[in-house]
Amino acid sequence: MSDDALALRDRLHAGQCSAVEVAHAFLADVGDDALKAWAAVDAERLLSDATRLDGLDRAARIALPLFGLPVGVKDNFDTAELPTSYGSPIYASHRPTADAALVTRLRVRGALLAGKTKSTEFAWMHPTDTLNPLDHARTPGGSSSGSAAAVAAGTVRLATGSQTAGSINRPASYCGVVGFKPTFGRLPRGGVKPLAGSLDTVGLFAASVRDIELALTAILDVPPAPPSPAGAAARLGFARTPLWSQIEPEAAAAIEATSEAAGATQLELAPGFLELVQAQTTIQYYETARSLAPELEHSPQLLSEELRMALDDGARIAEAGYATAKRTASALGARLVDTLDAYDGVLTPSTTGVPLLGLDFTGDPVFCRVWTLIGAPCVSLPLAWTGGGLPAGLQLVGAPGRDFELLAAARSLVSD
Amino acid sequence: MSDDALALRDRLHAGQCSAVEVAHAFLADVGDDALKAWAAVDAERLLSDATRLDGLDRAARIALPLFGLPVGVKDNFDTAELPTSYGSPIYASHRPTADAALVTRLRVRGALLAGKTKSTEFAWMHPTDTLNPLDHARTPGGSSSGSAAAVAAGTVRLATGSQTAGSINRPASYCGVVGFKPTFGRLPRGGVKPLAGSLDTVGLFAASVRDIELALTAILDVPPAPPSPAGAAARLGFARTPLWSQIEPEAAAAIEATSEAAGATQLELAPGFLELVQAQTTIQYYETARSLAPELEHSPQLLSEELRMALDDGARIAEAGYATAKRTASALGARLVDTLDAYDGVLTPSTTGVPLLGLDFTGDPVFCRVWTLIGAPCVSLPLAWTGGGLPAGLQLVGAPGRDFELLAAARSLVSD
Repeated sequence: MSDDALALRDRLHAGQCSAVEVAHAFLADVGDDALKAWAAVDAERLLSDATRLDGLDRAARIALPLFGLPVGVKDNFDTAELPTSYGSPIYASHRPTADAALVTRLRVRGALLAGKTKSTEFAWMHPTDTLNPLDHARTPGGSSSGSAAAVAAGTVRLATGSQTAGSINRPASYCGVVGFKPTFGRLPRGGVKPLAGSLDTVGLFAASVRDIELALTAILDVPPAPPSPAGAAARLGFARTPLWSQIEPEAAAAIEATSEAAGATQLELAPGFLELVQAQTTIQYYETARSLAPELEHSPQLLSEELRMALDDGARIAEAGYATAKRTASALGARLVDTLDAYDGVLTPSTTGVPLLGLDFTGDPVFCRVWTLIGAPCVSLPLAWTGGGLPAGLQLVGAPGRDFELLAAARSLVSD
Repeated sequence: MSDDALALRDRLHAGQCSAVEVAHAFLADVGDDALKAWAAVDAERLLSDATRLDGLDRAARIALPLFGLPVGVKDNFDTAELPTSYGSPIYASHRPTADAALVTRLRVRGALLAGKTKSTEFAWMHPTDTLNPLDHARTPGGSSSGSAAAVAAGTVRLATGSQTAGSINRPASYCGVVGFKPTFGRLPRGGVKPLAGSLDTVGLFAASVRDIELALTAILDVPPAPPSPAGAAARLGFARTPLWSQIEPEAAAAIEATSEAAGATQLELAPGFLELVQAQTTIQYYETARSLAPELEHSPQLLSEELRMALDDGARIAEAGYATAKRTASALGARLVDTLDAYDGVLTPSTTGVPLLGLDFTGDPVFCRVWTLIGAPCVSLPLAWTGGGLPAGLQLVGAPGRDFELLAAARSLVSD
């Protein structure tokens, strides 16, 4: 099935296929999980859920906007019916008592919990063994590695993710799919293992912008997005950022060409971008060291060396350094929000280039840090490609709270 | 025992009393819980923990900064060894699999989990039956009702709380104790039932500022606060806020007199305070309606009518309204942070006056909303009292991230 989620949902609503058939197709597609994208799949449980959905009458089915759609759930989201390891051997046999809030929302709207997708260890940097469907020699990115790969492979059309620095937008870009990190606080993160309390944001992966809109409107229980953006053409900006020199030249050229073709106005960001990168990093390390202190204290031997070192680094950040980072975030962040507010979306890099060779490093989140810090919605768009057929990381960023305007602008780019 | 936590800890370290003796004293003081402050106490479990602590050798005891101190934990914090109802009959028999992160941190530092203190329903407005120790005819405030009352009664010297609008600073003020809401994100909130993701902040109650400092430095594993504030006298401001006319005259007079006696400089806040009050309210209702949507969907009959109405109100907030509130928070909030940054602390009201008569309404959080929204640390101080011997709500607010400077300033006020 090459339908996107919306088309498949329409076929399910029309009774042209059943939820059980879709579930079987999913299970066949997972097969032996050659991409190593899945942390847990339970065929019996899935088919039982699908059978229950198929038992609903037609009116009840149509009332469910995500009826019968299998959704991959990142393994740092609690699920009561599937193991939840948070990507760590410490929680290898952990089974939470309840679903995370976002999982509940998806299921209440008719989605099928397809399975758990692999997360890096506690959504930090230690990689999983997941392969990038575009090129098995390259990283799929992280920390939402499994969700990005599973959507890119077409195994599921929707998946959840979480981002503290760049854990949605980077893997989405690396795998060539749409990754959406909403405004901070917009989607409930109850039941998601915390990393950095003032940064952690949950979001979604899909193959198309309209599928993100489908999922978001369903989760939030608001009317579907209009079929085409209303009113005038989207006001688009393009910001190289002061980190531009860190991008591979071929990727940079692809991003510039895409932005120019989209008619985006090149803009200078408010001063302070690099200070905000540093502030985000400080806050992330500081807060994560405190969130994961119990695991470090009780089970250091079960943590990767890179996470242990990061937690040590975070624990050593002085209170004054954290305080300064918070001040910087507030003062300089507000100016950046002002800049964003003049546009429906600002095109900007999401990665330092195409997915890196090797599976040891999930890539640098530096182009995502600032947007996560200021809570701005970001959507990775697979629109810029190198001659070698690899994605150059591109995202569209909006002012906090303007998620739907951002997605409408993104859709106008995709359908151009 | 009338020691504060620090003095008691020193006696425990010196072997002048044992953790088991302290636990017995706590249990005797709870008695039949005449104040109705406690949701769950398990004597056997507590004494077993205390016995284990007493079995440590002297060096190990001294290494634990909270050795043997019983701490009350608000019932919206997960605890694996005690029931966790979140203040709702929906979770009457709920027993989480793990302690909330903050509970773990306290216990790792030697604290005893004394029991669960009563929370209003999901930390919203529907009151508990908890009495205010200062006057049983008056509300203890909410949502951290039990923690505030238990500390005010001296049953415990430390307790945890959480604040989304004013749920720490208001009950602390109403009960005449010190309530500390730190910078947003500073303390880990993993395992605390989410209400509004971009506002929920966990914090502490104590009888003195130095006990707050003791707990905070222990939780964060940083050196103890210096015995007296270093350097020059604290730079103190006093801000009436544009809501000043909402305060009862006698309370307003007490606050003004206290601020004047402290030598605080009267200041005008940056414009936009009332817009920020509205933005916080919008964000709180919007996000809470989505966090608690599963409970509303599955168990509406087990929710209070006032919570159901609030969730309906929140669900009706249009996306555009939420977006505008986020923009307002960012733009106007940053200016307020600039104002705060010129002071070590700004004295300002925390409540509309003395604790209200009756137990039906936990009081208005309007004086706390803005500080929670901008993530500023706030410490309620029982320094302003009316002629009738009731506390006029007063808090000291600092710039985000400057928690320790704020507490040092607060300590200088208390010891003046």
